[in-house]
Amino acid sequence: MAMNYQEILEDIRVEVQPLLKKGKVADYIPPLAGRSLLHFGMSLRTIQGETYSVGEACERFSIQSIAKVFNLTRAMQLHGDRIWKRVNREPSGAGFNSLGQLEAESGIPRNPMINAGALVIMDMILNHADAGEDLILDKVRALAADESINYDLMVAEAENDTGHRNRAMAWLLKAYRNLDNPIERVLQAYFRLCSLAMSCEDLVTAFQYLATGGTDVHGEIIATSEQVKRINAIMLTCGVYDEAGDFAFRVGLPTKSGVGGGIVAVLPGQYVAAVWSPGLSPKGNSLAGTRALELLTTRTTGSIF
Amino acid sequence: MAMNYQEILEDIRVEVQPLLKKGKVADYIPPLAGRSLLHFGMSLRTIQGETYSVGEACERFSIQSIAKVFNLTRAMQLHGDRIWKRVNREPSGAGFNSLGQLEAESGIPRNPMINAGALVIMDMILNHADAGEDLILDKVRALAADESINYDLMVAEAENDTGHRNRAMAWLLKAYRNLDNPIERVLQAYFRLCSLAMSCEDLVTAFQYLATGGTDVHGEIIATSEQVKRINAIMLTCGVYDEAGDFAFRVGLPTKSGVGGGIVAVLPGQYVAAVWSPGLSPKGNSLAGTRALELLTTRTTGSIF
Amino acid sequence: MAMNYQEILEDIRVEVQPLLKKGKVADYIPPLAGRSLLHFGMSLRTIQGETYSVGEACERFSIQSIAKVFNLTRAMQLHGDRIWKRVNREPSGAGFNSLGQLEAESGIPRNPMINAGALVIMDMILNHADAGEDLILDKVRALAADESINYDLMVAEAENDTGHRNRAMAWLLKAYRNLDNPIERVLQAYFRLCSLAMSCEDLVTAFQYLATGGTDVHGEIIATSEQVKRINAIMLTCGVYDEAGDFAFRVGLPTKSGVGGGIVAVLPGQYVAAVWSPGLSPKGNSLAGTRALELLTTRTTGSIF
Amino acid sequence: MAMNYQEILEDIRVEVQPLLKKGKVADYIPPLAGRSLLHFGMSLRTIQGETYSVGEACERFSIQSIAKVFNLTRAMQLHGDRIWKRVNREPSGAGFNSLGQLEAESGIPRNPMINAGALVIMDMILNHADAGEDLILDKVRALAADESINYDLMVAEAENDTGHRNRAMAWLLKAYRNLDNPIERVLQAYFRLCSLAMSCEDLVTAFQYLATGGTDVHGEIIATSEQVKRINAIMLTCGVYDEAGDFAFRVGLPTKSGVGGGIVAVLPGQYVAAVWSPGLSPKGNSLAGTRALELLTTRTTGSIF
Repeated sequence: MAMNYQEILEDIRVEVQPLLKKGKVADYIPPLAGRSLLHFGMSLRTIQGETYSVGEACERFSIQSIAKVFNLTRAMQLHGDRIWKRVNREPSGAGFNSLGQLEAESGIPRNPMINAGALVIMDMILNHADAGEDLILDKVRALAADESINYDLMVAEAENDTGHRNRAMAWLLKAYRNLDNPIERVLQAYFRLCSLAMSCEDLVTAFQYLATGGTDVHGEIIATSEQVKRINAIMLTCGVYDEAGDFAFRVGLPTKSGVGGGIVAVLPGQYVAAVWSPGLSPKGNSLAGTRALELLTTRTTGSIF
Repeated sequence: MAMNYQEILEDIRVEVQPLLKKGKVADYIPPLAGRSLLHFGMSLRTIQGETYSVGEACERFSIQSIAKVFNLTRAMQLHGDRIWKRVNREPSGAGFNSLGQLEAESGIPRNPMINAGALVIMDMILNHADAGEDLILDKVRALAADESINYDLMVAEAENDTGHRNRAMAWLLKAYRNLDNPIERVLQAYFRLCSLAMSCEDLVTAFQYLATGGTDVHGEIIATSEQVKRINAIMLTCGVYDEAGDFAFRVGLPTKSGVGGGIVAVLPGQYVAAVWSPGLSPKGNSLAGTRALELLTTRTTGSIF
Repeated sequence: MAMNYQEILEDIRVEVQPLLKKGKVADYIPPLAGRSLLHFGMSLRTIQGETYSVGEACERFSIQSIAKVFNLTRAMQLHGDRIWKRVNREPSGAGFNSLGQLEAESGIPRNPMINAGALVIMDMILNHADAGEDLILDKVRALAADESINYDLMVAEAENDTGHRNRAMAWLLKAYRNLDNPIERVLQAYFRLCSLAMSCEDLVTAFQYLATGGTDVHGEIIATSEQVKRINAIMLTCGVYDEAGDFAFRVGLPTKSGVGGGIVAVLPGQYVAAVWSPGLSPKGNSLAGTRALELLTTRTTGSIF
Repeated sequence: MAMNYQEILEDIRVEVQPLLKKGKVADYIPPLAGRSLLHFGMSLRTIQGETYSVGEACERFSIQSIAKVFNLTRAMQLHGDRIWKRVNREPSGAGFNSLGQLEAESGIPRNPMINAGALVIMDMILNHADAGEDLILDKVRALAADESINYDLMVAEAENDTGHRNRAMAWLLKAYRNLDNPIERVLQAYFRLCSLAMSCEDLVTAFQYLATGGTDVHGEIIATSEQVKRINAIMLTCGVYDEAGDFAFRVGLPTKSGVGGGIVAVLPGQYVAAVWSPGLSPKGNSLAGTRALELLTTRTTGSIF
């Protein structure tokens, strides 16, 4: 029986309205701080290629940490399993930017989805001769089938200006000899990566390879089916920081969030969903976005569990 | 295409042989310390009821923390969502018996799969008028369709004699007013629960409800499909302590381990698998058992991701 | 030039009046919770034996943790330097009843002035054949030259009823094999010790040996001059928990406080001072008492620094 | 009775010989790593101006963290009690360069004697219009009555090259808005300060003001007697990092150590002592130097306790 996804998304949009005002916009990155709490967009794309959208699903926003999945995928392409010598794959049980944990674990980040881990992953990409000048941008454009996708340099610059804690993290990684490139080179690449501006529709297209076992919307093989399983596993256990357990419990899908208010979720073999709403929970995940995904798996009665 | 599970299990048994001697038997519970490292058994039961076994799949062993899943299921039956006021559902990022974390989080255990969480869950069961004298034993016997299943009182007594740290945990919970019943009543019930002796075949039968969306082998509804999803989610994010991320990455199934060397894993909609091998990894999970499950999902190319 | 101590104490009493109401009575031990905030007493006894007092200097109160100094002195008499195998002598940088720190440091308490350390010290006293039935009481009576000093059994019982966290601590020590005697035997002895009721005048008499290099008011040698120096050093660095630095900075004397509102301070070679006022600072030290001692060393322009 | 300090120092020199080889030279600052373990020098200067020396008491070495006392004194001169809004004065109970603690306490360093605290103190000096170009150097030259004292720029440069962790610390302070000046300006000033090269005789002269209640060897008033008491108190509780308790216990003097192997100690009203021996204990204090000071207070039977 075909699922009426469009109707389900419409219902979800109505149901999350009261939540929109309750979150808190990320205020430490000035260009994000200005965003209205009232934005809401959502898309779902099946592996057959049907796309369903509601609200501002074509409006681009700062995907922030969602980009860590592109970062990880690129490093896996370039370095394979060698990346696990420099970063672990355990949920952190701590905030996404904890220095104390990095120190307690001697400079090996808990996983690639927290800031310290993403910096190490980026450092590995920079180390590789085949990384290319733009590192990841061309790859993301190809995945999303849209050449107009770009960095938002105002956001990147704002992160650079206010990224004192990320700088502290990078120096601490350096102190533990877990960063090869010059600090500023890694940070600039990282800030640009986080500044990627994409819409919900861009995201459900770009993440298709995680629902199909590795093939993107052009039929290109992006990752082996084993790598895809592993990326999904890491998204489930580490993708929403210290809310991973609650998210698995309520939503039940591999997922990755960003402080820009975006969340992407994958039901392997079926679909990718993306949602955007700038108001965040105290732990840094979109409040209405989380609820929207919870409603999605409840209505469709399908999750990985 | 039907999977030749029997052949796969036979292959796995051969492949894990070299690992058997590499683990370390849990030595803090004397009756477990005596176990030979060479035991190995494995069973898989599909939701259609076919059962496949290799090695000592009918030999009973101390299931230890695997029983925490029965404990959680029983509390959900009796109290529903009220249990989440007293225990969280986040991976701990710490050992299974950390007092520092319980203290830092004011007496609310991180999840029901670590010792502190299981004590609180047991306390809630004891609070309920309908819990019955034996609390959970009758339920487990029914689930496994075997009335001969029982506590191993020698093990329970040994845990009582050496359970200083669990006692410390219980008193700390009491200090935070998160334990209603007398300490010793909760501890005795908890030690008995952990002492349950079951075989791999018992376990794949008893855990059937987690693969079927809630129905046990007799057709009884044990939990709603939503509750089952949630139990599976908690098993995935918290079932193997501070190896949850690595386990999701390598195996990709909701799972629960015990220091007796047993592990149970569930592929919803398909099967339950159980494996037993007493040698443990440094983080307390069966070494050969973990590898056996990794091989299972690799050979069958099926996981939740 | 002789110091006019009586006048100084009178001035101090007036000056601390406004602070009396600002503290908070320890509320976790019911008999202490009932105490009025308005009590204030202070005594000073020079090594020549002159005693000066103001306010309720003869009123007995629960000395609580001040008794840890008697506990330590007794263990030094019985065991000498062997005690340092089981307890350290570093400031804790944490609360007086932190379980996380004890766990992180594998069951070796940071110092004898925090609860865990005092339990280990008490355990060592209980281990010794010469400890005698009353352990310490006769010694304290002799030191204070007053046979009427006694335990307040209502307080000891209240601590027993509410001492869940101390029980957790004792079991954790046991788990690390740093407690030889049965938990309850150690705890009962400890609760009784903390319940000692003494006045400021009792205290300045009893602590005389710390100002004289080891000789008590009867001329008995209680400790060697080297032991006295060490006890004073421990009081300075560890006697007021996580306010040790601030106390050294403001008062500049070896000191020990109790949650009953008492504080004893020693200026070696000159005097012992004791003050009592039940209102506590957030870190658990008498608010007016701390200020009174700060005024004392300011007015007399004498501290150890 | 006059103390025969010269004889005592000679005896100490003989007695510590076996310890010289047992320490470990600080290896993270290359120019220090090259130092022979066999150096030993010691000086003592009474407040009457008599100076006693043995061994290489005139050899200059890198005073490293000992300079934090000059740093603190200068900030007190310029800013008085306002400095305590930005730094605490409690022993850390942790290593001298812990980032986790700084994070847990929201960017307020535990005390001015750990690296984070010294960076904040240096930032305050840089903020002050009267700090002068050289900040502290002229002051140290005057205190030591020797214009030839200087920074060792090779050491400063080496610290700059390897100071990743200090850079991480500085950025973390910046993230908590507890650093006003540009990171590099603060760090360069800090690295230069730590590179000061002085001998034991220089040090006992320069620290005279801490033994005399504030007057230096020229009769200049460097600090009020109250400020001196406070500096001595901070040295006692925080001057040797996480060995403060043990040091107070064994030596019993306000003291400050550096990873160059130097230690300065003060007996207020009597003398300043300085000792140099490059081999360090695991916690970073000179092994033979610590023992030498312990012997000094034992032989002279004088400490602050």
